[in-house]
Amino acid sequence: MEALADLVASLPAGVVATDPATVAGYRFDWARDTAAGTPVAVVRAEDAAQVQTAVRWAATHGVPVVPRGAGSGLSGGASAVDGGIVLSLERMRAIEVDADCQVAVVEPGALNAEVKAAVREQGLWYPPDPSSFEICSIGGNVATNAGGLCCVKYGVTTDYVLGLDVVLADGTLVTLGGKRIKDVAGLSLVKLFVGSEGTLGIVTRAILRLVPLPLPPATLVASFPSVVAAAEAVVAVRRTLRPSMMELMDRASINAVEDFSPRGLDRSAGALLVVQSDAPGDARTAEVGAVEAACTAAGATEVVVTDDPAEGEMFVAARRAAFPAVEARGALLLEDVGVAVPLLPDLLAAVTEIGVRHGVEIPTVAHAGDGNTHPIIVYTAGDADSERRARAAFDDVLRAAIRLGGTITGEHGVGRTKKAALPEMLGDDVMALTRRIKDALDPDGILNPGAVL
Amino acid sequence: MEALADLVASLPAGVVATDPATVAGYRFDWARDTAAGTPVAVVRAEDAAQVQTAVRWAATHGVPVVPRGAGSGLSGGASAVDGGIVLSLERMRAIEVDADCQVAVVEPGALNAEVKAAVREQGLWYPPDPSSFEICSIGGNVATNAGGLCCVKYGVTTDYVLGLDVVLADGTLVTLGGKRIKDVAGLSLVKLFVGSEGTLGIVTRAILRLVPLPLPPATLVASFPSVVAAAEAVVAVRRTLRPSMMELMDRASINAVEDFSPRGLDRSAGALLVVQSDAPGDARTAEVGAVEAACTAAGATEVVVTDDPAEGEMFVAARRAAFPAVEARGALLLEDVGVAVPLLPDLLAAVTEIGVRHGVEIPTVAHAGDGNTHPIIVYTAGDADSERRARAAFDDVLRAAIRLGGTITGEHGVGRTKKAALPEMLGDDVMALTRRIKDALDPDGILNPGAVL
Ligand SMILES: Cc1cc2nc3c(=O)[nH]c(=O)nc-3n(C[C@H](O)[C@H](O)[C@H](O)COP(=O)(O)OP(=O)(O)OC[C@H]3O[C@@H](n4cnc5c(N)ncnc54)[C@H](O)[C@@H]3O)c2cc1C
Ligand SMILES: Cc1cc2nc3c(=O)[nH]c(=O)nc-3n(C[C@H](O)[C@H](O)[C@H](O)COP(=O)(O)OP(=O)(O)OC[C@H]3O[C@@H](n4cnc5c(N)ncnc54)[C@H](O)[C@@H]3O)c2cc1C
Repeated sequence: MEALADLVASLPAGVVATDPATVAGYRFDWARDTAAGTPVAVVRAEDAAQVQTAVRWAATHGVPVVPRGAGSGLSGGASAVDGGIVLSLERMRAIEVDADCQVAVVEPGALNAEVKAAVREQGLWYPPDPSSFEICSIGGNVATNAGGLCCVKYGVTTDYVLGLDVVLADGTLVTLGGKRIKDVAGLSLVKLFVGSEGTLGIVTRAILRLVPLPLPPATLVASFPSVVAAAEAVVAVRRTLRPSMMELMDRASINAVEDFSPRGLDRSAGALLVVQSDAPGDARTAEVGAVEAACTAAGATEVVVTDDPAEGEMFVAARRAAFPAVEARGALLLEDVGVAVPLLPDLLAAVTEIGVRHGVEIPTVAHAGDGNTHPIIVYTAGDADSERRARAAFDDVLRAAIRLGGTITGEHGVGRTKKAALPEMLGDDVMALTRRIKDALDPDGILNPGAVL
Repeated sequence: MEALADLVASLPAGVVATDPATVAGYRFDWARDTAAGTPVAVVRAEDAAQVQTAVRWAATHGVPVVPRGAGSGLSGGASAVDGGIVLSLERMRAIEVDADCQVAVVEPGALNAEVKAAVREQGLWYPPDPSSFEICSIGGNVATNAGGLCCVKYGVTTDYVLGLDVVLADGTLVTLGGKRIKDVAGLSLVKLFVGSEGTLGIVTRAILRLVPLPLPPATLVASFPSVVAAAEAVVAVRRTLRPSMMELMDRASINAVEDFSPRGLDRSAGALLVVQSDAPGDARTAEVGAVEAACTAAGATEVVVTDDPAEGEMFVAARRAAFPAVEARGALLLEDVGVAVPLLPDLLAAVTEIGVRHGVEIPTVAHAGDGNTHPIIVYTAGDADSERRARAAFDDVLRAAIRLGGTITGEHGVGRTKKAALPEMLGDDVMALTRRIKDALDPDGILNPGAVL
């Protein structure tokens, strides 16, 4: 491609990489979608102006642009496209904390954990906490409207984004929102870009709302004979309470974690719930007591409570280790289906049934308090029959969620791996509406083509 | 207009009103914008299908449609348009509470207070609480992304909207979102419609997230020698705390309320802060103590604390009475400017200066904890000089907010009365982006023309 020389020439040395070895490192995100293409170049922009230069070049030449943060995405949203460029934000990672305003002004490549650490120094907290917080970027979090473990009480990424700088498909840089907390002047454009998975624009700066640090939490771990019993405890708790965390691991994921890095979890449990409360004083005692009672009523065989944050964090770390642990067992197809909380037992029962029917292992973890589950379908790479059964199970899980009035993705995004199911979930009219907005903002379709739509 | 007969014929008797007396009642919202037009008809739809019928008719004939909830808007967003129809949602007010899911499924005409009451019966709470909660509709709240008094801790309307049914400009009815709490499948369309002020579609149903009822609050009332001193206390508190309410009244608004319906407020105070804490137990004691200390440090001359919710509510009711009380003094131009919290003293100082410079009375109340203020400019209707000075002050307040990096509207919406200042605040590129979305969704511009854009 001749035009590529123009791109290289228009940016400082080292920003554009075209050598195959470097480029190969930017083909996949964590979904390792085998359909990923090979880009012609990787642009590792150092500032918003360089992002604009690259996008203007792409617009002129009709070249696809795949925005990329840290590549931890689980739905192929950052899978490279043949003949396109990958626009990586990994070098833009400045973090500026404005403690008086309780906001952080952050470049998109900064990791979630880096933001958390920077604001903590000032006694502040940035709540959104995907399990991947140490390896995912704020830009990726914004683009996917990332969730995590604390959402059940503290909400998701969009609840913390006050402002965005965005480079549009024609290279224009717009500044949306700001440090003010309330603002209804004009359309809710900030919120539209959050969760747009790189299909409407490229985030080059985010103004994030911070809150005071919460109290160190108490942690409750309950063992259940079955995943459905655990889910029933969740339903009961969520009828009246909002604990600061409510995570579920099923037997297969417990055992995967124990195999991968043993931590003394109860391998014989049908499921574990890990629940935290960061309420103060008596309110905490009451909340933990109510959760314990609900667990016991739902058939918990053991309930352990600890006020020691370090001990609590051990269980949470075990839950976070589930993806890497299951990955050690084979190739994966990752689900992110969600339903209204009362339907959680039905969804989990459906997943179990699908696993049995297709003869595939589906370890499952869940941000249970929000009804958001991650069935992880394991198969043997290279074994065509195993892969076929895994894909059939993947589709069936998506369909089960849709049938229960739920979503095909609660936090990971549609990306490329869940795209086929989106029309079934949203229906023709909503798809057409989505398409109208996409076409209005990116008429030539250069931004992350093949993702979402 | 001949086509009008078609509209009347296509809907049940009593839905379309064309008689001048009825129609006249739908020309204005609470802003009483003198530029409001006279519509050809008012459609008081009874269900979504009737909304679709009316919109399809309007689309066919190119007739403007002004959606209207309860008409309590303060920015002329529901001002009628000459030759258009007003599409009132006031008859659609069903409320269905799903306690297990902690959601309410609500028709748009239901009043905020009606929703609050219905969910309270099940021990649940719908937080958003505009001061007008007894006279404003959920549809209007969604369309303006309404705020209120509890936002400082509990957020604004958009934080509680999980799903919407929307009739688009061509009459298509789309269902967006649902009862699930987390959902990132496709673009954030729900969030785009929230705050769109009837310019993108007509909300015919909302799924609202509920939370457990909070504890009855403790209330602290502090008197300050000046409004700037009170604002400084707010800045200090908000550096580390999130009380459940933090409202400000200046001397002029205190006196307006005392004149209108005496409640024993301190008429000599330069400003009052009304602060509430609904934290449990010791956390409440600590929070109230910290607020008291900050007020004293900022120069408060008196601080009163009460644990009696009824006594506390008296002060809050006094704050809520400010608009009606000031309205008794003359014609009003209502502001809704906001800044980042640390700039609150600067904004309030600027308002005082503008009042003096133009020789106009500007009683001011504020959702101070969020940096959102309501300077209320009073003038004598019919007195051209008074009105001219009021309008000049109105523009200067908007400009002061923009100069401080703030917003021209924190919660009331742009509507028609603040439209002229929007381009100055957003800039050309953001205006162009907004226009592209508007054109994509409403190419013929029939939905609330003249509002926002
Ligand atoms: C072990 C593990 C656990 C995880 N747990 C969670 C979890 O609990 N909750 C959760 O929500 N996710 C989780 N994830 C998924 C993933 O970490 C999140 O989706 C994260 O937000 C992706 O961030 P990233 O920087 O890695 O983005 P990438 O993978 O690089 O990109 C993700 C998407 O965002 C787009 N994008 C990235 N940066 C920008 C930008 N600056 N502008 C515009 N578009 C951009 C990409 O095009 C792509 O569509 C997990 C992943 C792993 C590997
Ligand atoms: C005394 C008083 C105090 C107030 N205090 C506050 C406050 O604290 N916080 C706050 O945010 N506001 C406040 N307001 C303003 C007002 O009450 C809010 O803006 C409210 O949300 C408007 O609701 P409504 O039903 O009256 O809407 P309307 O005035 O009828 O309409 C408002 C806007 O929404 C559009 N709209 C209405 N219904 C729909 C629908 N179903 N679909 C699409 N568009 C629709 C209209 O076209 C218009 O643009 C106050 C008003 C008064 C009179």
